[in-house]
Amino acid sequence: MILYILKGKDHSSLKEKLKSSSASFKFLNLYGKELALAWPDSAVEGITDESVELVVKTKKSYILAGNEWKKDPTVVKVKDVEIGSKRVVVAAGPCAVESMEQTETVAKAVKRAGASLLRGGAYKPRTSPYSFQGLGEEGLKILRKAGDETGLPVVSEILDARDAGAFAKYADMVQIGARNSQNFTLLRDVGKLGKPVLLKRGLGNTVEELIQSAEYVMMEGNGNVVLCERGIRTFEKSTRFTLDIGGMVAGKLMTHLPFCADPSHPAGKRELVHSLALASVAAGADMLLVEVHPRPEVALSDSEQQLTPESFELLMERVKALASVLGRSA
Amino acid sequence: MILYILKGKDHSSLKEKLKSSSASFKFLNLYGKELALAWPDSAVEGITDESVELVVKTKKSYILAGNEWKKDPTVVKVKDVEIGSKRVVVAAGPCAVESMEQTETVAKAVKRAGASLLRGGAYKPRTSPYSFQGLGEEGLKILRKAGDETGLPVVSEILDARDAGAFAKYADMVQIGARNSQNFTLLRDVGKLGKPVLLKRGLGNTVEELIQSAEYVMMEGNGNVVLCERGIRTFEKSTRFTLDIGGMVAGKLMTHLPFCADPSHPAGKRELVHSLALASVAAGADMLLVEVHPRPEVALSDSEQQLTPESFELLMERVKALASVLGRSA
Amino acid sequence: MILYILKGKDHSSLKEKLKSSSASFKFLNLYGKELALAWPDSAVEGITDESVELVVKTKKSYILAGNEWKKDPTVVKVKDVEIGSKRVVVAAGPCAVESMEQTETVAKAVKRAGASLLRGGAYKPRTSPYSFQGLGEEGLKILRKAGDETGLPVVSEILDARDAGAFAKYADMVQIGARNSQNFTLLRDVGKLGKPVLLKRGLGNTVEELIQSAEYVMMEGNGNVVLCERGIRTFEKSTRFTLDIGGMVAGKLMTHLPFCADPSHPAGKRELVHSLALASVAAGADMLLVEVHPRPEVALSDSEQQLTPESFELLMERVKALASVLGRSA
Amino acid sequence: MILYILKGKDHSSLKEKLKSSSASFKFLNLYGKELALAWPDSAVEGITDESVELVVKTKKSYILAGNEWKKDPTVVKVKDVEIGSKRVVVAAGPCAVESMEQTETVAKAVKRAGASLLRGGAYKPRTSPYSFQGLGEEGLKILRKAGDETGLPVVSEILDARDAGAFAKYADMVQIGARNSQNFTLLRDVGKLGKPVLLKRGLGNTVEELIQSAEYVMMEGNGNVVLCERGIRTFEKSTRFTLDIGGMVAGKLMTHLPFCADPSHPAGKRELVHSLALASVAAGADMLLVEVHPRPEVALSDSEQQLTPESFELLMERVKALASVLGRSA
Repeated sequence: MILYILKGKDHSSLKEKLKSSSASFKFLNLYGKELALAWPDSAVEGITDESVELVVKTKKSYILAGNEWKKDPTVVKVKDVEIGSKRVVVAAGPCAVESMEQTETVAKAVKRAGASLLRGGAYKPRTSPYSFQGLGEEGLKILRKAGDETGLPVVSEILDARDAGAFAKYADMVQIGARNSQNFTLLRDVGKLGKPVLLKRGLGNTVEELIQSAEYVMMEGNGNVVLCERGIRTFEKSTRFTLDIGGMVAGKLMTHLPFCADPSHPAGKRELVHSLALASVAAGADMLLVEVHPRPEVALSDSEQQLTPESFELLMERVKALASVLGRSA
Repeated sequence: MILYILKGKDHSSLKEKLKSSSASFKFLNLYGKELALAWPDSAVEGITDESVELVVKTKKSYILAGNEWKKDPTVVKVKDVEIGSKRVVVAAGPCAVESMEQTETVAKAVKRAGASLLRGGAYKPRTSPYSFQGLGEEGLKILRKAGDETGLPVVSEILDARDAGAFAKYADMVQIGARNSQNFTLLRDVGKLGKPVLLKRGLGNTVEELIQSAEYVMMEGNGNVVLCERGIRTFEKSTRFTLDIGGMVAGKLMTHLPFCADPSHPAGKRELVHSLALASVAAGADMLLVEVHPRPEVALSDSEQQLTPESFELLMERVKALASVLGRSA
Repeated sequence: MILYILKGKDHSSLKEKLKSSSASFKFLNLYGKELALAWPDSAVEGITDESVELVVKTKKSYILAGNEWKKDPTVVKVKDVEIGSKRVVVAAGPCAVESMEQTETVAKAVKRAGASLLRGGAYKPRTSPYSFQGLGEEGLKILRKAGDETGLPVVSEILDARDAGAFAKYADMVQIGARNSQNFTLLRDVGKLGKPVLLKRGLGNTVEELIQSAEYVMMEGNGNVVLCERGIRTFEKSTRFTLDIGGMVAGKLMTHLPFCADPSHPAGKRELVHSLALASVAAGADMLLVEVHPRPEVALSDSEQQLTPESFELLMERVKALASVLGRSA
Repeated sequence: MILYILKGKDHSSLKEKLKSSSASFKFLNLYGKELALAWPDSAVEGITDESVELVVKTKKSYILAGNEWKKDPTVVKVKDVEIGSKRVVVAAGPCAVESMEQTETVAKAVKRAGASLLRGGAYKPRTSPYSFQGLGEEGLKILRKAGDETGLPVVSEILDARDAGAFAKYADMVQIGARNSQNFTLLRDVGKLGKPVLLKRGLGNTVEELIQSAEYVMMEGNGNVVLCERGIRTFEKSTRFTLDIGGMVAGKLMTHLPFCADPSHPAGKRELVHSLALASVAAGADMLLVEVHPRPEVALSDSEQQLTPESFELLMERVKALASVLGRSA
């Protein structure tokens, strides 16, 4: 496809030309730039206009998320928290929001330890319909309240575009989970929602496919996407999933978007979480997503892998020390 | 969880008991039987009622789709086509509905060759937003028309619950694709739609997870689910995906639901499609899903793996011969 | 690399030219043809000779095993048993040779049911050093005796080149197991041994790598290689390994060598063996390798997946029926 | 199996008892302790002796490599270099020894940068027989000379037990490569050789299998084994292999043996090597194995992934800084 970087305000002439061609096209504003996308190449060839400042062509399967047109790393802002900048951002909180008390307890603990964002699942995608499915909108409200009390912006997973209103109201960042990583309908809808997006890699998806999924969000004019490595399916059985740190590192060379790593899900066991978190930061992760529960042993989901607040506090200290020698902070 | 198989019409007494317990529960009708599901076990223990004919407990993560309560194989009816019976049912048609003419041509050809169902993609889930996304509702209408002209019931993939109306109107069987195999929201919605469902296994999902996804559909009272093996992600590069015939065979021992195999997607190359189709039938597939295009070389998607009508005709002959020695027909 | 197909008896002139170049080269006789291999291309360029009948170049990573120079399928003869011809050859026998009585019982049973080769492990590669390691040379002698009594040629796995003498004496076909599939030293040594070879695919190897391993054997002048698909490592847990039937089908297009399928190891459970065997034959396998034990429940290894003689007899009937509709026999 | 930890010098009484039982058994000395192994459990039950200090039983598939009998981490000494102690040990050098000059150049460069061991391949296991196969014994001699000149102990890969003499003479540590990770014959032979062993994980092997392979070496009385994570086969294509850092972390909880990480092979591209090396150290690797070549672009193997001496120097600085905040050195 072809990306036109435009100047001026009036792009009607280019639009006319594209309309009268056989190309598909889309005009959008991203990172303060006016852009036009057009494809396939064969239909666009030779089309230009004086409103065009620069034409970028690619042989890759994505362009907005790629770094051929945008060399500088993108910094995603969630309220006043910057992801992709010098600071390693840590989002922490329970796998599932279970109650006001549980969520407040965790929120205070992770805030005190140095987390910058509060995570918590309100709508839970569970392999089995007989597992706890989350508190739904009620869970989002609890998360919002705990976030407001502690001053932590909140991030939560969306499962259904029909809940967009609730997310618009209560969430600061919207997560698309591994199982919906190629739910292209949801990707577009979340793109339109306009909130920063935390996009997880699917269990069976390549890094390139993750970036292509981001492209769906970005085509709706939403450039605030953080990609998240959370482990892939392999034959190894000593961990729940295989955290693909190499894929994250390779991915960082393919895109200008920041990368988050989730050490909790691939670990499956809390004994492994610290090491995976530290490895991720050492490899260049811009953000960590860590599950913390006040009493993991009674958690309604993922009880094996959630950290206690004490363990999380220790992890934050270790992350901070590590970040400092990497020229970052945490 | 616990499954109560009920007798009589009045189940209000059991319902009251469950309501006053801490259990989650659901009443539904499946395969002509009145059922109640209740979970978790600890909350249900000791609850019984005189309206209960049989109580089935399981340690598995699914129960409706399992064969602990239902020993006989389920036969899914799509209009007058029976899937899971003696006959190996073949659904064939283009990857994507591209035009009335293309679809009619294929429909006639596959009908003549012996296919029982017409498949065709109207809404296309594409890894890249710049690939052909399908004709949408217009595509469904074309498919419907071609189906009616040839007397073939039609099956097409749904991506978004908001299109349920169009599927209710134009489709005879609704496909949930690999990328939405754990889109639990869509699974529930399609369950409610009431049409027979063709549920594909996700690229990174185990067979057990596929069966759990079917459980989501069935919990809505829809037992007409055909499971579809279509290849998983592995390191092997000579094929597009690895058709997991062993997983299908193991799966058939875990569920009463019929199994379909899709030889086209894992092949990725049309030279391999016949062999994978025959292998699937030999291994016990109840249904095949085969991509056929009048001129594969100009197809707007999956052009490498679609069969020509001539090749499909030959395949049908081979499938029929094979089915006959297996005590089946095709 | 470059393959020279030679004429006449005197190739000294070409040999001199290659010696005085910087190329690596090797002269060998394969399938009755005099051949010379030389590589890398840059060093061979322009070298020709009047003793050269045909020059074959390839961009692939293998040439002897490829079908650019040899279009006709290779038929591997193990005594009077032809593998790669019309007949589907079945090798059957115990995972491990445990005793004379056990082996004779199985040999007679599989012979009666229609097997053409007797398989049995004498040297057993076991993941754990505390598992039964096989009877060694004593096991080979037992196998030989049982083979002679029933008239079945015997195949057994070699683990160590230092046992070559025993294999030369007692075996008719030498198996290289999955764990040694890239043990290049052993591949060369077995190539030199001159006996027909059954080469299994490694758990983590691509089909292309399997063919490259065959190339090592063939470079020693031994063209009697049967490739064996026996399942690869994937995330799926309902089977022991994932039988990659698609890989076998793709592989058959890449090589002139015949393919065997081992349905026993990927199954891991005897309930799945029949279906995987039938699927393999339907997909074009030239040979099956099936584990049969007189009393699987007391077997010293792989007790879960070995068939009883009765079950094997039924399998043979099914394989014969299937082969007949494929234009083959069994 | 059962592990007897023995006291005194005379174990003849226990030996007699085991001999007269149906158990398999083995006496060995490991880490200065006299030990006896006996299995299976059923045959050993009730056997004890006054020479027995402690009896250790396990339900695991390995015992010598496990930490049920040995809680303290094992420190493997290669001459005066300690692996598994506070210091993160770095082994560096060319993929293949190509010439005296190349090897000396690299040896001096990596020594200067802070490497503790010199690595270099003399016998090269290559997927294709037409790739450079290494200089063999000549390569070992070159490596030895370069090691002696720089004071670096040397590590090189063995492919064939028949080369044991050359390794005994020229190598300080013997590597068993990924392709021979389950070559049980070679594992035993290298165990007998007595040199410290660097044991790589196979492409398709679980961490548990890697530990079981170590058990084969240790059963020969050689406890100086370093396990090496070097990436496994997965579907991801942006890296050559998937470095399984989670597997390494889980493995460290299963064994007392130290772990090495090889960031070069999974990277496949030198741009990724630093990040994978740092991630490995952050996750707890005791050793790194890094490919360095004076002129990677002309290397005879793995040219894409070898670091330049300059890049390696920078890596060492980063590793040292990282180690320091982890309470280690490098």
